[in-house]
Amino acid sequence: MYHAQYAKIQANQLFITIFFVKKVTVLGGGTGSYVVLRSLRQIPSLDLAAIVTMMDSGGSTGKLRDQLEVLPPGDLRQCLVALSEAPEIWRKLFSYRFEKGDLKGHNFGNIFLSTLQKITEDYEEVLDEAHYVMQCVGRVYPAILKNADIHVTYNTGRTIDSERLLDELNPDSGVIVNAQAIPKVEAYPQAIERIGKSDVIIAGPGDLYSSVISIALANGVPEAYTHSKGKLIYIMNLMTKASQTKGYGAFQHLKDFETYYHRMPDICIINTKPISSHMQTTYRELGEEPVVNDLVQQGYQGTIIEADLVDTTEYTGSDQHLAASFAHSIVRHDEQKLKTVLDNILNNR
Amino acid sequence: MYHAQYAKIQANQLFITIFFVKKVTVLGGGTGSYVVLRSLRQIPSLDLAAIVTMMDSGGSTGKLRDQLEVLPPGDLRQCLVALSEAPEIWRKLFSYRFEKGDLKGHNFGNIFLSTLQKITEDYEEVLDEAHYVMQCVGRVYPAILKNADIHVTYNTGRTIDSERLLDELNPDSGVIVNAQAIPKVEAYPQAIERIGKSDVIIAGPGDLYSSVISIALANGVPEAYTHSKGKLIYIMNLMTKASQTKGYGAFQHLKDFETYYHRMPDICIINTKPISSHMQTTYRELGEEPVVNDLVQQGYQGTIIEADLVDTTEYTGSDQHLAASFAHSIVRHDEQKLKTVLDNILNNR
Repeated sequence: MYHAQYAKIQANQLFITIFFVKKVTVLGGGTGSYVVLRSLRQIPSLDLAAIVTMMDSGGSTGKLRDQLEVLPPGDLRQCLVALSEAPEIWRKLFSYRFEKGDLKGHNFGNIFLSTLQKITEDYEEVLDEAHYVMQCVGRVYPAILKNADIHVTYNTGRTIDSERLLDELNPDSGVIVNAQAIPKVEAYPQAIERIGKSDVIIAGPGDLYSSVISIALANGVPEAYTHSKGKLIYIMNLMTKASQTKGYGAFQHLKDFETYYHRMPDICIINTKPISSHMQTTYRELGEEPVVNDLVQQGYQGTIIEADLVDTTEYTGSDQHLAASFAHSIVRHDEQKLKTVLDNILNNR
Repeated sequence: MYHAQYAKIQANQLFITIFFVKKVTVLGGGTGSYVVLRSLRQIPSLDLAAIVTMMDSGGSTGKLRDQLEVLPPGDLRQCLVALSEAPEIWRKLFSYRFEKGDLKGHNFGNIFLSTLQKITEDYEEVLDEAHYVMQCVGRVYPAILKNADIHVTYNTGRTIDSERLLDELNPDSGVIVNAQAIPKVEAYPQAIERIGKSDVIIAGPGDLYSSVISIALANGVPEAYTHSKGKLIYIMNLMTKASQTKGYGAFQHLKDFETYYHRMPDICIINTKPISSHMQTTYRELGEEPVVNDLVQQGYQGTIIEADLVDTTEYTGSDQHLAASFAHSIVRHDEQKLKTVLDNILNNR
């Protein structure tokens, strides 16, 4: 029964793929990729995929990774939910976070993926079963299939050896001058293959080093990205992040991106709407501020697409996944506004 | 997709049901019901169901019940696995027990059922989704849908107020003179309905009070059982249990059963094969011994079916569920031998 259904989905995809579908691949992790994938899902006739960073070491994900010796499930799980067409109960299940007891702080989807990995040696099978149960419209590829950590060095000489520490608020970190994966790790071949055949590759928004550049630290990713015939789009963050991009203008984001991916994005989508002064005050206390658009001034040669992209609505619904996302990034991209911009680019309007 | 598939299964069941199927319902919980259901699955053309005790308060199940305020999932989970036709990976997933970290001692299937209950108010939906994902051939009905505990009083005056304590080894407990559910709780109406329309009802093997009689403590169960036109079969335990049936012969098991179910079983299946002296020694240290067949001597009026039913093979496989079962009950019923006996009864051979 599983296989009959799967074959049907694949047959449909094949039909669409051959005739009129653009292959669009999102690079990143966390809430940023979630929002972009949700936006893209509203645009008809796309063949969607996500390549997710697998160096998360914080929270529920970090604990499961350490305690069960599995790959970090969190970013994978968020992208699976974003692409899911399963009944709502399954999306709720995958996003459910326990509030008390032994499981407190853990997320059911993370536990599900970790347990699957414990009972099968083959991570392809983990991916197949997860995509099946979540009925995903598109595929999520881990960037790597072996555990590795992002190590960064700041211009102050300080070093950090895991994503968890990089993710912490640390206004005095300095500027990152080097990032690498330790141990050195090969990219997942299917992720490389997907980059190679993508018509459009979208990076960001998301934490520049922990979500976006971390993917390029896997051997093979920069080469695949550089040689891709696809159009390369970068969605600029709305705010700087103290421990990763303190004081960065938009152009410096792209320069750092280029350092690791070896190619400048062809298009940069950047927000024009001022962040409210109330929000700016909240962020400023953490050493973070709106990303200034200095792209023309700094001589960026690609296409700049400016638009109001900000979603500042308060979330009052009961979707735990969204609630958690909102709590993490108070100032965030609006799914609908992003959809409009991406639709225009992808369909040459 | 889910619903189409479900409708198809139900249509098939309807067809079979009308023409040549016996409705067989197993009462109990734990390893006992698991083995009986596995045996029954080998007999063609049966409409299978299990009614499971929901008063477990020990182990992973007890912790989840307390910490998350859910119904105890463990017995339900074991019966779902027994009836599952899902790919092996799903049965492994449901039976997986974590060995370390925050989740240590918990079972994935238990977590799955508990999380489902947290995200839906409707326990029917929990059951539907669990049966769907496990592709069960048959339905598992919880005996009750509200948490309640079995309270027992011994002839020593000692009282115990939860299944967990009743399950512990306690050679000096005495003889149970009373058992009740606190709070008083109504049986799940669909379980009652299923008892009413069953052609055959099988109770045991399993801990007499915590697995079998606990079901009869729900309001409505004894009446449904007494009035059922179905044939009533009792599968006698192989060994006594110190805290529940110390010193019991076979007939006393049936007498206690009758006290709570208000009707003697029509058929009693009982083992003839001597338990090895090595095993007897192990059990004797716990105050437990082989159940003596005193049915004729004590005037049991029903049909007695005697057979070699013992499985004493050491388990060396990798199925965690079976491994855990084996560890729990070293002397246990053999699935194949039980199948032969049940097949003969059900098909009047």
